[in-house]
Amino acid sequence: MLEQIFAPKSVAVIGASPDPTRLGHRVLKNIVDNGYSGTIYPIHPKAATVLDLPAYPAVSAVPAPPELAVIVIPPQLVLDVVEECGQCGVRGLVVITAGFKEVGGAGAELERALLEIVQRYEMRMVGPNCLGIIDTVSNLNASFAALMPGDGEIAFMSQSGAICTAILDWSKSEGIGFSRFVSLGNKADVDEVALLKAWGDDPQNKVILAYLEGISDGPGFVQVASQVTKNTPVIAIKSGTTAAGTRAISSHTGSLAGSESAYEAAFNQSGIIRARTMEQLFDFALLFAYQPLLPGPRLAIVTNAGGPGIIATDAIERAGLRMAEFSAATIEYLRANLPPTANVFNPIDVIGDARADRYRVGLQAALNDPNVDGVLVLFTPQAGSEPEETARVMAELAANQPKPVLASYMGAWSLEPALKLLNADKIPNYEFPERAVAALQAMDQHRRWRAAEPAEYASFDVDRERVRQLFAEVRASGRVELGEIEAREVMEAYGLRLPQSRLARSPEEAAEIASAIGFPVVMKISSPDILHKSDIGGVVVGVADAAAARDTYELIDYRGRKYSPNARIWGVLVQEMARKGREVLVGVSRDPQFGPLVAFGMGGIYVEVLKDVSFRLAPISRQEVAEQVRSIRSFPLLQGVRGEAPADLAAAEETVLRVSQLVTDFPEIVEMDINPLVVYNRGEGAVVLDARIILQG
Amino acid sequence: MLEQIFAPKSVAVIGASPDPTRLGHRVLKNIVDNGYSGTIYPIHPKAATVLDLPAYPAVSAVPAPPELAVIVIPPQLVLDVVEECGQCGVRGLVVITAGFKEVGGAGAELERALLEIVQRYEMRMVGPNCLGIIDTVSNLNASFAALMPGDGEIAFMSQSGAICTAILDWSKSEGIGFSRFVSLGNKADVDEVALLKAWGDDPQNKVILAYLEGISDGPGFVQVASQVTKNTPVIAIKSGTTAAGTRAISSHTGSLAGSESAYEAAFNQSGIIRARTMEQLFDFALLFAYQPLLPGPRLAIVTNAGGPGIIATDAIERAGLRMAEFSAATIEYLRANLPPTANVFNPIDVIGDARADRYRVGLQAALNDPNVDGVLVLFTPQAGSEPEETARVMAELAANQPKPVLASYMGAWSLEPALKLLNADKIPNYEFPERAVAALQAMDQHRRWRAAEPAEYASFDVDRERVRQLFAEVRASGRVELGEIEAREVMEAYGLRLPQSRLARSPEEAAEIASAIGFPVVMKISSPDILHKSDIGGVVVGVADAAAARDTYELIDYRGRKYSPNARIWGVLVQEMARKGREVLVGVSRDPQFGPLVAFGMGGIYVEVLKDVSFRLAPISRQEVAEQVRSIRSFPLLQGVRGEAPADLAAAEETVLRVSQLVTDFPEIVEMDINPLVVYNRGEGAVVLDARIILQG
Repeated sequence: MLEQIFAPKSVAVIGASPDPTRLGHRVLKNIVDNGYSGTIYPIHPKAATVLDLPAYPAVSAVPAPPELAVIVIPPQLVLDVVEECGQCGVRGLVVITAGFKEVGGAGAELERALLEIVQRYEMRMVGPNCLGIIDTVSNLNASFAALMPGDGEIAFMSQSGAICTAILDWSKSEGIGFSRFVSLGNKADVDEVALLKAWGDDPQNKVILAYLEGISDGPGFVQVASQVTKNTPVIAIKSGTTAAGTRAISSHTGSLAGSESAYEAAFNQSGIIRARTMEQLFDFALLFAYQPLLPGPRLAIVTNAGGPGIIATDAIERAGLRMAEFSAATIEYLRANLPPTANVFNPIDVIGDARADRYRVGLQAALNDPNVDGVLVLFTPQAGSEPEETARVMAELAANQPKPVLASYMGAWSLEPALKLLNADKIPNYEFPERAVAALQAMDQHRRWRAAEPAEYASFDVDRERVRQLFAEVRASGRVELGEIEAREVMEAYGLRLPQSRLARSPEEAAEIASAIGFPVVMKISSPDILHKSDIGGVVVGVADAAAARDTYELIDYRGRKYSPNARIWGVLVQEMARKGREVLVGVSRDPQFGPLVAFGMGGIYVEVLKDVSFRLAPISRQEVAEQVRSIRSFPLLQGVRGEAPADLAAAEETVLRVSQLVTDFPEIVEMDINPLVVYNRGEGAVVLDARIILQG
Repeated sequence: MLEQIFAPKSVAVIGASPDPTRLGHRVLKNIVDNGYSGTIYPIHPKAATVLDLPAYPAVSAVPAPPELAVIVIPPQLVLDVVEECGQCGVRGLVVITAGFKEVGGAGAELERALLEIVQRYEMRMVGPNCLGIIDTVSNLNASFAALMPGDGEIAFMSQSGAICTAILDWSKSEGIGFSRFVSLGNKADVDEVALLKAWGDDPQNKVILAYLEGISDGPGFVQVASQVTKNTPVIAIKSGTTAAGTRAISSHTGSLAGSESAYEAAFNQSGIIRARTMEQLFDFALLFAYQPLLPGPRLAIVTNAGGPGIIATDAIERAGLRMAEFSAATIEYLRANLPPTANVFNPIDVIGDARADRYRVGLQAALNDPNVDGVLVLFTPQAGSEPEETARVMAELAANQPKPVLASYMGAWSLEPALKLLNADKIPNYEFPERAVAALQAMDQHRRWRAAEPAEYASFDVDRERVRQLFAEVRASGRVELGEIEAREVMEAYGLRLPQSRLARSPEEAAEIASAIGFPVVMKISSPDILHKSDIGGVVVGVADAAAARDTYELIDYRGRKYSPNARIWGVLVQEMARKGREVLVGVSRDPQFGPLVAFGMGGIYVEVLKDVSFRLAPISRQEVAEQVRSIRSFPLLQGVRGEAPADLAAAEETVLRVSQLVTDFPEIVEMDINPLVVYNRGEGAVVLDARIILQG
C-alpha cells in the first residue's frame, strides 16, 4: 500500500533547481544519487537539464504522467501545481514546502485548500512541511536529508523533522539501517494511521517506530494499531504534554484523567510498546529487527564476570522476566565442559580468563535447553579474552534457531572491531546490561500481546431508545446534567442494579415511601441544579422511622432552598439503604483525541487521595476489563484481605462493560461517575448507589 | 589520607617476574611505564634485574623500607611476606593475589590471619583478590589493568574487578579521566568507608563513584558518607539483591522491610545519589566532574528544533525541576537578536538554520538571566548547522561563570569532531536529552542535600534504666517477646501516651477495673505466648457494662486455654477505649548491615495491602522524620481530606523519634510494632493502642 509514494515507477521533482544551494536541487540529487531505478523528471520553469536529466517546465509537459511528485516550491505556488498534478494523473505527493498550518492563520487556510485538491483527485500526500521520505527497498530518497540510511528492516516515522535528521545521523554511525524513513510534517493527508496500515502488511518492515507529538484520529489509531501489532511490533515514543486544561472538568473522573492516561490506555489496548526515551526507542528496535521473537519469559545469561551477571539478574527480576532453571542435562554438560570454578547454574559464569571456546560451551548449552527462551551474553574485556572470536561464536550459534541472542559487551576502546562484527551479524549489543534487559522486556510484552486471545466484546441487551428519549428531554429542558432520577433511569435501561428508590414531594409522602421500602432509609435532595448534594447537607443516611422521615424531608428541603436559592428542587429521593460492601468508582471522561475513557478504582480515598485508578478506552473488551480491574494497586482489597470473602469481580467487570456500551452508544456523554458502585461478595452482585451523567454542552 | 597507598614515596612489587606473561611482570610494567616518580623495587627470589631495575630477593633486602608493597605471589606465601613487610616498616599493601575469602573455608581462614598481621603492624591494605589501584595524581598504576586511564577528577571504586576493566575500557574511548581508580577486592581492611573518608577531603576528587555489591559496616558507611557528601558528591550503584530470608520475620515491619529498603534509607540519609544503571553512574559523574554545581532548580533550554525541545521540557517537568521564566530583559534581548520566527521564551528555539552565532545569543541570554540556574543546549544536525563552532561558543560562554552548561548533540556520524571538542572543553554531552535531564536531577538532589540545615537529633528525657531492667527480666524468664503489659511499660518509660489499662485476674476484678476506667472498655488476653491475640478471639472491643465485663473475661480466658493449651495466661487486660483518630504504624526491624530501620505508614490496609510505608535508619533526625512522614503516598490522609482537620503530625513525628531513641539505646530490640498509633487532630496528641517488642534471640 501507498506504493505511489514509496515505490513509484516515476518521480517528478517540482522545483528541481540547477542551483546546488537550493533545497530542490538537493532533493533531486538525493533521488539521482541513491540508486532509484524509475524515471526521474526534474521540473523547472527555465532549465533545459538539471543534474544532466532533461527538465520540463511543468508536470503537464512531461510525456507520461509521473506517479509521484515531490514538491519544493514556495507555498503560494503549491495549490496551482497540485491541481495540475491531479489533472495529469499524478497519484502521490510529497510536499516538502513549509508555510502551511504550522504558521497558523492563512497557512492553515492554504492547507485546507491543498487537502481539498488532493482528495478531489484521490491522490495521497505526505506533508506539507516535511523533510521528505526515504525507502531503501525501492532506493528512493525523496528528501533533503544529508544522509542516506543503510538497508534495514526498521520502518521509522516522525512528526519532527529535526528528530529525523538527528536519527539519521546517529544511525549512520551505529550502522543501523531502515526500510522506510518518513518525516510526517503537518500530516494533512497521510498520517500515522495511514502509515501503520501501509506498513503493517509488508514483510520488509520487521518493526515500526513512531515518534509522535499528537495523534489526530485516536479511535482510528487504536483500531489500526491493534491489528498491525498482531503481526508487526510497533514501538512509539509520545512526546509533548498537551494542555488538557481547556475543557471544563466537574466530575471525579474528569479531574483524574489527563491526556497522558488516554495515551497510556490507547497504547495498552492496541499492543503498542511505549518507549520512555529516544534511547529506548532504538534499543528496542534493534532487538526486534535483528533477532527472532522471544518464545517465553525464561532467560539465560552467559558471562565472564560475576558483577555484570548480578546486574543483569537484578534487572531481569525487576522487569518481571524470569531467570531460566536449567535442565539436569544442561548442568551436566556445563560441568563436563567448563573449568571447575565456573558457575554452571544461571547465570553461567565462564570465568574471567574465558576465551571464545568457553562462551561457545555456555551459549550452546543455554540455547539447547528447553527451559530457556533467550540468551543474554555479557562480556567484559579481560586478560586472554577474545572479543571478536566470541562475537563470531555468537553469530554462528544464534543463526537459524528460534531463540533471541543478544549481547552486552561492556567497554569500547578495545572492543571496536568486535562491536562492528556483532552489528554486521545482527546480534544486538548494549553498552550496559540493563538496557539489554529492557529490550527483552519490551519483546516479552509483544509476545504476550500476540499470544493473547482475540478481544471479545460483550453486547448486552439494553433499552437504548429509552436513554435516547431521556437525553432528548434533558436537552429540551435546557440542561446538560441529568438529575438523579434521570441518571437512575439510564442505569436501569442499561441493566444496572439500583437500590429501591422513589421521589417524595412532601414530608408525608416521604414517610409513606420510607415505610413501604422499610427502615432505615437514605434521603437525598433531588434537584437538577445541585451537583454536590453532600456539601449542602442534602444527603441524610440512616433515617430510622416515619417521624424521622418527615423531619428529614423538611430539613433537606430547607437546606436546599437556603444554600441554593435559585435551584429547582423536585423533592426528596427516599432510597433503600443498601447493605455495606466494597465501594468502587466507575467513571467516564471524554478525551479529545481518543473519545470515552473509562476509569475504575476503589472508591473514596483510594481514588481521591491515592489516585489509584486505571483507565481503558471504550469500547472495552472482556479481557481488557479483567486486566483493568486487576491493575489497580488496591486490587487485593477486592480479592479480600484478613479472611474477607472475595468481592464479586464479575459483577464489577460487567458494570464497566455496560458503562462502556452506554458511552459508545451515546457519544454525547462527556462525563459520568458511578460513585460508589457497591460490590458485594462473590455471586451477590453490585449496586449503583449514586450516578452522575453530563452531556455535551 | 591513605597516602601510603595512593602516593607512596617508594613501591616494592613482590612477585615482579622477568617473565612477561606473569601478572607480577605486568604490574611492575604498569608502575614503570606510567610515570610514577618514586623509587621502585622489584622483589624476585632469583632475578638480578627486572625491567632493567635492580631486583631484590626479599623486602628485607631492600636498603630503605618501601612505603608500599604490591603483592602478586601465590596465596600460601602471602602471610610470611606480609609479616616481613610489617617488620621492615612497610606502611601500605595492595594484595592482588586471589585465593582468600572468595574461595571459602581455608581461604577465609587465611584472610583472617592476613588481616591480623596487617592490623598488628598498623599497615593499611587494599585487597586481597583485586585488580589493584591506580592514582593519576601520583601517576601510580599499581594494577594489572590493560589500560591506564587519563587524568580526571572522578574517583572510582568497585567491588567487582570485571566492572573495573569494563569501565576502564569504556572510559578510554569516551575520553573520560579519573583521579583514583580502585578495585576493592575482598576489602579485608580498606573498604568503601575507608576510601570515602580518604577521598572526601581531597580536592582532586570532584566526584566519587562507587559500584557496591554489599556494605560491611552499614552505620560507619552512613556516618562517613553523610559528612563526605556535604562537600563531595558521591554517586553509587548498588547491585545484588541479598537474600534477607535467613532471619525469622514475625512482625509487620519485618515482612515489609527488605535489604533494599535499608539501602534506600541509607543512601537517602547520607546524601548519596543513587544511580539505577551503570549508564547513569557515568552520566551523572560527567556533569559533576565537568561543571559547577547547579545553584537552583530553574533550567533554560536552547535548541535548534522543536521536537527535542519538547522532549527535554517533558523530562524536566517529570524530574521535578523547573523551566525558568525569563526576565523581560532577556526576552527583549532575544527578540532583538534572533530572527522573528525564533521562540524567545523557554525553550529558546533558534530555528533549524541556526549557525553558531544564534546559539551564542541564546546561551548568553540564558546565562545572564538571574532567573536561570543552568542551561541545556540541544543540537540537531541540519543544513547550515555549525556543530564545532557551536561547541566552541558553549565552551567560551560556560567558562568562568557559576552555572552549569551541558549539551545534547543528537546524532553522531557528522558530529564526531564536535563531540571531541565538547569533551575536551568539559561540556558534558548526552546522546539524548532525557539523559542530560536525569543528570541535572541528580545534581539538584545534591544541591538540596548541601543546602539542608545540619541534622538535629532530639534527645528525650526517658527512663532508660527501667527498660534495661525489664529486658533483663524478660530474658531471665526465657523469653524474647515482651507481653503486652511489659511493652506498655517500655512505651511509658520512653514517654509515649497509652490508654488507661490494668490487668484483671478474675471476672470480678475485670468488672471492677472496667467500672473504674469507665465504659465502654476493650478487653484483651494477656499472655507472653500468644502473639496474634485477635486471631484466637482474644480481643473484644466495646464491652458496655459490668456484667459484660465479667462474661467477656470468662469468654477470653476460655478461648485462650482452648486455642493455646500450653500458653501461660496472666489474665485479661482491661483498657480504656480510645477515641477514634487516624491510625498509623510505627515499626522497627533490624537490618543485618545497617541496624535498626524504622517504618512509618498509615495503619491497616495501607500498610498491609498497599505497602505504603517509608523507612529511615535510626537514629533519625528531626528533618528526616519530617520527610519520612511526608513521603508516604497516603500522607494527604494525615493532612486531612474532605474538610477534615489535619492530624497531629508533631505527635506522630515525636513518636517516631522516641522509638528511634529507644532502638538506638537498646540494640537488642530486633523487631517492634506500634500498630496502631492513633493520631488525633492537631494539638491533641497520639496514643499507642498496641505495641509488640521482640528481643534478640
